[in-house]
Amino acid sequence: MTNQEFYMKLALQNARAQKGQTDPNPLVGSVIVNEGRIVGIGAHLKAGEPHAEIHALRMAGDKAIGGTIYVTLEPCSYHGGTGPCAEAIVQAGIKNAVIATLDPNPLVSGKGIEILEEAGINVQIGICEEESRRMNEVFNKFIVTKRPFVTMKAGSSLDGKIATHTMESKWITSDESRHDVHLLRNEYMAILVGINTVIRDNPALTARIPNGRNPVRVVLDSSLRIPLDSIVVTDGLAETWIFTSQSADREKENMLQSMGIEVFRTQGENKVDPSDVLEILGERDISSLLLEGGGTVHASFLERGLVDKVVLYFAPKLIGGQSAPTFLEGAGAETMKDVVDLVDTEIVKIGNDFKFIGYPVIK
Amino acid sequence: MTNQEFYMKLALQNARAQKGQTDPNPLVGSVIVNEGRIVGIGAHLKAGEPHAEIHALRMAGDKAIGGTIYVTLEPCSYHGGTGPCAEAIVQAGIKNAVIATLDPNPLVSGKGIEILEEAGINVQIGICEEESRRMNEVFNKFIVTKRPFVTMKAGSSLDGKIATHTMESKWITSDESRHDVHLLRNEYMAILVGINTVIRDNPALTARIPNGRNPVRVVLDSSLRIPLDSIVVTDGLAETWIFTSQSADREKENMLQSMGIEVFRTQGENKVDPSDVLEILGERDISSLLLEGGGTVHASFLERGLVDKVVLYFAPKLIGGQSAPTFLEGAGAETMKDVVDLVDTEIVKIGNDFKFIGYPVIK
Repeated sequence: MTNQEFYMKLALQNARAQKGQTDPNPLVGSVIVNEGRIVGIGAHLKAGEPHAEIHALRMAGDKAIGGTIYVTLEPCSYHGGTGPCAEAIVQAGIKNAVIATLDPNPLVSGKGIEILEEAGINVQIGICEEESRRMNEVFNKFIVTKRPFVTMKAGSSLDGKIATHTMESKWITSDESRHDVHLLRNEYMAILVGINTVIRDNPALTARIPNGRNPVRVVLDSSLRIPLDSIVVTDGLAETWIFTSQSADREKENMLQSMGIEVFRTQGENKVDPSDVLEILGERDISSLLLEGGGTVHASFLERGLVDKVVLYFAPKLIGGQSAPTFLEGAGAETMKDVVDLVDTEIVKIGNDFKFIGYPVIK
Repeated sequence: MTNQEFYMKLALQNARAQKGQTDPNPLVGSVIVNEGRIVGIGAHLKAGEPHAEIHALRMAGDKAIGGTIYVTLEPCSYHGGTGPCAEAIVQAGIKNAVIATLDPNPLVSGKGIEILEEAGINVQIGICEEESRRMNEVFNKFIVTKRPFVTMKAGSSLDGKIATHTMESKWITSDESRHDVHLLRNEYMAILVGINTVIRDNPALTARIPNGRNPVRVVLDSSLRIPLDSIVVTDGLAETWIFTSQSADREKENMLQSMGIEVFRTQGENKVDPSDVLEILGERDISSLLLEGGGTVHASFLERGLVDKVVLYFAPKLIGGQSAPTFLEGAGAETMKDVVDLVDTEIVKIGNDFKFIGYPVIK
């Protein structure tokens, strides 16, 4: 690890520690070094409060003069709040700036760097870039596309089955994995399932952790088959939004609405297009979406290139069965060329299970 | 790590280094320690040559007197070769014996220990037991049951698919994984595939590594559908044994035999019972068998409790498809109670793929 990586990783740690408290702003951390000593550290703590660089500059005071600032994200170039940070860095007398990643917003990306360079500051970009970019993966996507960051999640046996052929599925994964899923739900603004999952499992889809925040529950239900006594319809613990097609029954729609459920009628005559769902969720400021299956729903998003991240929990079990459902069904890839490749993969042990994380390559 | 583990792990390393050169004997290592110094090391190098303890005792000479011997396997109690080792240990004046695991053969298990204890040697059993037992997993099973140790191997996408729904499968796993499979084949005495795999993929099933030993190729083919121009029938690079049923065509059988292929007609009228196959392989001194699919063959062995070990290569890919084949089909588990649990699991990265190893719990 170089000195530069050492300081940038400290900035990343401070940034990451604020997870969940900076919305709708991204996580950002900063470190100022002068003559081999850290003279300031900072992180963005809360929207409306100073950016990371400002905190670090204030801590450094005069010791910022001639120093090097490390920032996990390009300093802002726009006025408002405590910005622009780029100008504050110039005024503080900083000599070198090391930046992990450019601003993801194409409208402002590069402008902060410009201000720094015009003032004669020596700028270096790309130290721990990947790590910084992944840290704000939800923010980065939403700010640019106004569509939610989509994570496909499944828990299965090693042979990919999410139930036996008789549809038993309780429980495949361990207590530890299921607790991890609750933590995951707490991080996402919405969870999406298909109507078959609701009919078959009647899940609550809540984040069962202390002080947990329940995501909006989104159900794809093209012909409004949802039972009126489903937990997601009756429990009142979180909002439930149902996406349906043009042909769905009006009376059932009215009934659901009278029970406090929002019903979105998308363009399709008999089917719900996943792209329409993401567009509407984006309009409603849902920046992150957790897909929780089943296999048909997963395939419908994955095949359209709409999945940004994949999280899989593998239990050390073998279920077997030609007709047992897997977590990815639909038509599937036609040839090996159509297979979805995942990169930046990682597997960690979680209880007796294995948790896999990867990112689909968009072709 | 305790001192005891330190010395036993050294003995295990020396034992493991002889892999492939001790057949039909097991791997065994030994270390002798006196007053905190290693005074002898040994390993069984070749059948017919001295056992590990004898090598170590010879190296130690007089320094064995009052010392501690570490052995990865219970010293033998029977005459023949350089045995019995237990008596040699007594005669050398050893004071303490630390042993990883008892002899797997119930006819002699515990008898070596008895000799040591009767001579007043302080005996401790079970240090690194699991590691020692796994090191000789093939030997341990075969010596007791006269049936081959069976490893089920598959290479699949993360969703368990071994081909697209159009049956394309070249290649799902990486070059590194496929090379690892060739190393694996080199370790097993036979490879088994179903007739569908032969018809669909026409594989060579050889170990393509320098100085590699090709295992016997076993094909389950209940109605002798194998094409006479299949690579395994024509290439002559390794033996091919076909297991078929009573109802299979006699003429085809004769034709295959005239081409140098052995045909085994098992008891079943129209089907081949996997148990019959293992029994016959055992009679032919095949001590280890690698199952290489497809999903129906895997299920037929796994469902009967005939799989001892599972090795899976997962490529970081998603194939999808309700009708795409997975590596474990058949009827599959009926309820969650019938699911096969795997223990002593491990995942290692191999190229961009993940290699999983686990052991089915026999219920």
